[in-house]
Amino acid sequence: MKLYRANLIFTPTKDAFRILPHGYIAVREDGIIDQVYESLPQELQSLPVTDYGDRLMIPGFCDLHVHAPQYRNMGIAMDLELLPWLTTYTFPEEAKFADVNYADHIYRRFVHELWMQGSMRSAVFGTIHPEGTRRLADLFVQAGLGSRIGLVAMDRNAPDNLRNTPQQAVQDTLALQQHLSQHGNDDLVQTIVTPRFIPSCTPQMLTALGQLAKEQNLAVQSHLSENRSEIEWVRELEPESSCYGDAYYRYGLFGQQPTLMAHCCYTEGEELQMMKDHHVYVVHCPTSNCNIASGMAPIRTFLDAGIPVGLGSDVAGGHNFSILRIIQYAIQVSKLVYAQTHGELQFLSLSEAFWLATKSGGSFFGKVGSFEPGYELDALVIDDGYLNYDHYTLEQRLERYIYLGDDRDIRWRFCRGTKLVEPVM
Amino acid sequence: MKLYRANLIFTPTKDAFRILPHGYIAVREDGIIDQVYESLPQELQSLPVTDYGDRLMIPGFCDLHVHAPQYRNMGIAMDLELLPWLTTYTFPEEAKFADVNYADHIYRRFVHELWMQGSMRSAVFGTIHPEGTRRLADLFVQAGLGSRIGLVAMDRNAPDNLRNTPQQAVQDTLALQQHLSQHGNDDLVQTIVTPRFIPSCTPQMLTALGQLAKEQNLAVQSHLSENRSEIEWVRELEPESSCYGDAYYRYGLFGQQPTLMAHCCYTEGEELQMMKDHHVYVVHCPTSNCNIASGMAPIRTFLDAGIPVGLGSDVAGGHNFSILRIIQYAIQVSKLVYAQTHGELQFLSLSEAFWLATKSGGSFFGKVGSFEPGYELDALVIDDGYLNYDHYTLEQRLERYIYLGDDRDIRWRFCRGTKLVEPVM
Repeated sequence: MKLYRANLIFTPTKDAFRILPHGYIAVREDGIIDQVYESLPQELQSLPVTDYGDRLMIPGFCDLHVHAPQYRNMGIAMDLELLPWLTTYTFPEEAKFADVNYADHIYRRFVHELWMQGSMRSAVFGTIHPEGTRRLADLFVQAGLGSRIGLVAMDRNAPDNLRNTPQQAVQDTLALQQHLSQHGNDDLVQTIVTPRFIPSCTPQMLTALGQLAKEQNLAVQSHLSENRSEIEWVRELEPESSCYGDAYYRYGLFGQQPTLMAHCCYTEGEELQMMKDHHVYVVHCPTSNCNIASGMAPIRTFLDAGIPVGLGSDVAGGHNFSILRIIQYAIQVSKLVYAQTHGELQFLSLSEAFWLATKSGGSFFGKVGSFEPGYELDALVIDDGYLNYDHYTLEQRLERYIYLGDDRDIRWRFCRGTKLVEPVM
Repeated sequence: MKLYRANLIFTPTKDAFRILPHGYIAVREDGIIDQVYESLPQELQSLPVTDYGDRLMIPGFCDLHVHAPQYRNMGIAMDLELLPWLTTYTFPEEAKFADVNYADHIYRRFVHELWMQGSMRSAVFGTIHPEGTRRLADLFVQAGLGSRIGLVAMDRNAPDNLRNTPQQAVQDTLALQQHLSQHGNDDLVQTIVTPRFIPSCTPQMLTALGQLAKEQNLAVQSHLSENRSEIEWVRELEPESSCYGDAYYRYGLFGQQPTLMAHCCYTEGEELQMMKDHHVYVVHCPTSNCNIASGMAPIRTFLDAGIPVGLGSDVAGGHNFSILRIIQYAIQVSKLVYAQTHGELQFLSLSEAFWLATKSGGSFFGKVGSFEPGYELDALVIDDGYLNYDHYTLEQRLERYIYLGDDRDIRWRFCRGTKLVEPVM
């Protein structure tokens, strides 16, 4: 058993923080949390304690939607909406990843950035290229960061050099899965079935991917109802589907396996009901939805319906990896929705948005994102000394760290009980 | 004449950047820009050059709306809308500034932060307290930062310990003006007439302040049409005014002198026309408008109407002093307006938002915010090396600095030609 002491803050439920001032956290050798304590019980008092003093200790962040090959485009090229943005900026960049050396150059920075910003778990889009995507997975294994890595499938409405066939997409995903299991990998890094989105995938591709997910018991990730023009296009491409979500569902890609769907800015009615019925995750990407002018996802409606929700940076639609900033934007966008609906949709509280970034998003990976007994220890130790020059409560300190802090303030990072060192870049 | 060399980027008009790769800027002894050059003319080649290498050099930022006494509340307490937020969080904090020692403690941090974030010019709300507000002005003078400092006037709908009388407000503003002129001050720091907002000021107060502004030829700053409940309240308080803006106008506080009006989320119709007719500045505070759930100001409409617009951090409604972030939010909020209006109101381009933060906002202070001949040299030297690991254009480097950079990247700061040292905190 290992013991850590710090100001512990986490969200067992979305409605409130649990705060243990100078509390203790006891962690088993396998990285699973045994218990947290306000004061150390008699039987543990002989054990050594790693004491983080007056620092904050919070669960690690989960980034449920991010595109590794778009790292270079982060912070530029945000003058177009989704569909022209993809063809103008995104596809030309992704084509470069046919070169595994370029992939290594960019993916090292990508993995380093996730580490730096405290995203201990992620769900990641690679490209169609098997070598580059394997390199990406290897870098995650080396870093000790948890991830679901998707070899992207596209066989229509993409440049020739960015298309794979259904057979290739299936084979390459199987090979990646095989590679990761040979790694002696402890399942922290796994593959995830990744149709880019309906417009990029023929019915043959979708059918093959749905079968693959089912046969191999793999999770699925994709995009849903991000932009009005995209939704209209899906309607034309899949006239037999009753909604965009149904176009995935008909191929076994909408909750038949654990499923992440990014954006959902315009999800309502039947699609919303299907997400609820099939426990499909909404991945809310508020910075991206602002940057490429998609719109505002009605997160309060999703929460009220009991749909699982997590947060995503969606780099490079999003301009920033920091989940602090995504928490902040999630709250802010919900306040604009609140203003727009004259208060009908209550905005997200701080604890709710923090819960989305930790326990709610973390649930996709198992018992991740909380400090409750049985959870894997993903944690960040925060030194907010420069922000704490006056008499702030611990909850206010957390709030100021979320709004004003950055990567500089994260002093130590744990993923599944292991303290991580800085990945080589 | 002094010569500086760097990658110069500025916006003579809102429609495009002017970029001089490794260009030169020649500055007269009084801090006024003589000329910029792509290459150095013969007659200047004998002069020494301060060479900033491959760094970027851009105009300093202008923060046209910020509350100095709310510095401590930055990043906390954002769970309420404007009116309850004021009474619950803001007024109790402002009352502390009766103690000049507390004022000194907080205002040192405030001025340091403006320096750190590169805001070379600002328009600032103090409190009703003359001693504390004088201390604030002195700290600006010491720092060499340009500012308009307002002694706040409030004589209704405020706690007893946060009210002054019309006579006090006038006397204390005159005394502050007198104090600043005795400083041997070069007019970088001046006072500005500051009714908090209509609900805080009786007709007697507004009348006295309008007269003061006219007699002393002083600029005016206040708040306008930020929040629906506030607008409704003003309608009740000032039934003879045709709109909120007219309530200021009737007392000589709406463009009869140079005037800043923060927010304008719901300005339209007659109020919009009045702002245009009387050249009243809109100060757009997008982070604040998100944080306290006010709404989205239609900036495109204001620009199309020819109304002058600048940007404001509005700390502590805003959670951050960085004008980089305000530029970013201004663009993002304009994209949400674009999505909401189905593309009717085109979103802000990068050059437009940058122009708002520099030349457009700077125009309130004179010839400030550009590198054109005759402008005062307000400038930031940016080291973006860690962001520039691939082949980015200079405009992309600026965009990445705006979206991804922070105070760490500002290496040197100039205000009116003087290179500033770090203010003592």
